[in-house]
Amino acid sequence: MTELLPSWRNGATRSAIVSFLDRVHEIPPSERVAVFDNDGTMWCEKPQYTQLEFMLAELASAVGADDSLGAKPEFRALLDRDQEALAEMGLERVIFALVDLHTGLTPEAFDDRVTGFFENARHPDRGVAYRAQRYQPMLELMDELRARGFDFYIVTGGGSEFVRVIAEEFYGVKPEGVVGSQVAYEIDRLDDGSLRLVRTGDVVTGGVNEGATKPTNIQRILGRRPVVAGGNSAGDAEMLQYAQSYEGPSLALLVDHDDAEREYAYESKAGTFETDESILETADRLGWVVASIKNDWSTVFADS
Amino acid sequence: MTELLPSWRNGATRSAIVSFLDRVHEIPPSERVAVFDNDGTMWCEKPQYTQLEFMLAELASAVGADDSLGAKPEFRALLDRDQEALAEMGLERVIFALVDLHTGLTPEAFDDRVTGFFENARHPDRGVAYRAQRYQPMLELMDELRARGFDFYIVTGGGSEFVRVIAEEFYGVKPEGVVGSQVAYEIDRLDDGSLRLVRTGDVVTGGVNEGATKPTNIQRILGRRPVVAGGNSAGDAEMLQYAQSYEGPSLALLVDHDDAEREYAYESKAGTFETDESILETADRLGWVVASIKNDWSTVFADS
Repeated sequence: MTELLPSWRNGATRSAIVSFLDRVHEIPPSERVAVFDNDGTMWCEKPQYTQLEFMLAELASAVGADDSLGAKPEFRALLDRDQEALAEMGLERVIFALVDLHTGLTPEAFDDRVTGFFENARHPDRGVAYRAQRYQPMLELMDELRARGFDFYIVTGGGSEFVRVIAEEFYGVKPEGVVGSQVAYEIDRLDDGSLRLVRTGDVVTGGVNEGATKPTNIQRILGRRPVVAGGNSAGDAEMLQYAQSYEGPSLALLVDHDDAEREYAYESKAGTFETDESILETADRLGWVVASIKNDWSTVFADS
Repeated sequence: MTELLPSWRNGATRSAIVSFLDRVHEIPPSERVAVFDNDGTMWCEKPQYTQLEFMLAELASAVGADDSLGAKPEFRALLDRDQEALAEMGLERVIFALVDLHTGLTPEAFDDRVTGFFENARHPDRGVAYRAQRYQPMLELMDELRARGFDFYIVTGGGSEFVRVIAEEFYGVKPEGVVGSQVAYEIDRLDDGSLRLVRTGDVVTGGVNEGATKPTNIQRILGRRPVVAGGNSAGDAEMLQYAQSYEGPSLALLVDHDDAEREYAYESKAGTFETDESILETADRLGWVVASIKNDWSTVFADS
């Protein structure tokens, strides 16, 4: 007999998850919907978001081809690693400037660049491929949910198109099962009469897919109501509370990054629900299940 | 041996479809994506859109509960069947007024109303349930595409939530496989601390999902590139041309409503690509496959 969740150590967290799995039969099959954040929940997000690694590589390549780009304040600050200037601008402004680097690309051309990035890139600290940055315990939980009839979706603050490139290989999730931040497209007609799509620089429908935008995008794009949600930061709080508000058995799971030796130790600085409350305080107050990487996971990374 | 596409009569249209099916092996499995319009393509849209039937029933019920609603110009015109006033306002304004009837409802409450509608409603002319308004030849084509590894999606001008209620039963399409016009949601916190979503009256992301909005929503929401597309009106033209622009074998299929005896005879009045060209002229110019209901279909309706 195969052991259930082998990378989860015995304790209150594992027990709470197993208790939930034992109650899945109480949930009608059509309502078995699980939504999981990606960065920091399904894979490692430190020392910085993988998508930011990709965008910085794209920036280096763009500046190599046209050095006047380096004069743009957001790019100047990035190239100089000027943390003060970056903090002043805010992550969103910097990211939107980077997104604009891909304006005019077709979806296929963008996919090719992301595919190329994942083929060659290695994690800056661990030196492994990004596939090996996935969390083994979360993959085991994903498999157990699927084995019980759950549909499993990725709901990320990252760009939909970026995550879709690896979602099927990394998580068995089809492109339409990824809900992320969305860029706009416009139609471009070629001389031969054919039609293609090209990216505009705009990030649409609620901006970055974080906070209250997550539940509303889940409804608009997936049309499903989650009863299981996993996250790790204030950006996931509304999604976790939404799953927890389901009338039957539910699971709201928060990953706590408290293992400086095997991963990283840090806490999301943003306050939950736009208050000063930390995400761990919120988890405690609302009774979410908290997974301590240090205490609850016997193995952290997949394929390692 | 089962006959292929039994409700399609022999002729140039059936031959073109069969030729395409014979070439599917040239398309990489991950690129086998089919998108079909719903109203007038997968089911009958006359004497009026099914969703408009639903909304008029909702209006009657709302006015029964609060007759002051009847004073609203859009509703007055609908209740009086004042075609002149309706034409002057335009369908979009009238529909947006109807959409606003459901502001404040949760997704679950809206689903319940749609479910109730489909349980009881009968087609005004044929007296049958809406399930029997589906086109048998299109269901056969859908099955043949799936048998060859295609993912099949519904891309409709109707509301995503309305069509999702019947999409799995009618077409085997999960909620996330339906791309329609989208209403916005906001978060509502209840006194017990739980969180729910409620509809705002806004129709978001490009407005009604027609014309150039269809390809862009296909990319943003599904993240797939279609190689087969089916439609019947100017609202589907960009989507058909997008499928046709695929570099390998593709199929752009237009349903022509020319059978006044068995269905209805009418032509989409809107010009294609915002010109004066009719959709049949566009089909002829671009070489789309045209399915004449009168000549190409031996059976029109499913379950009939």
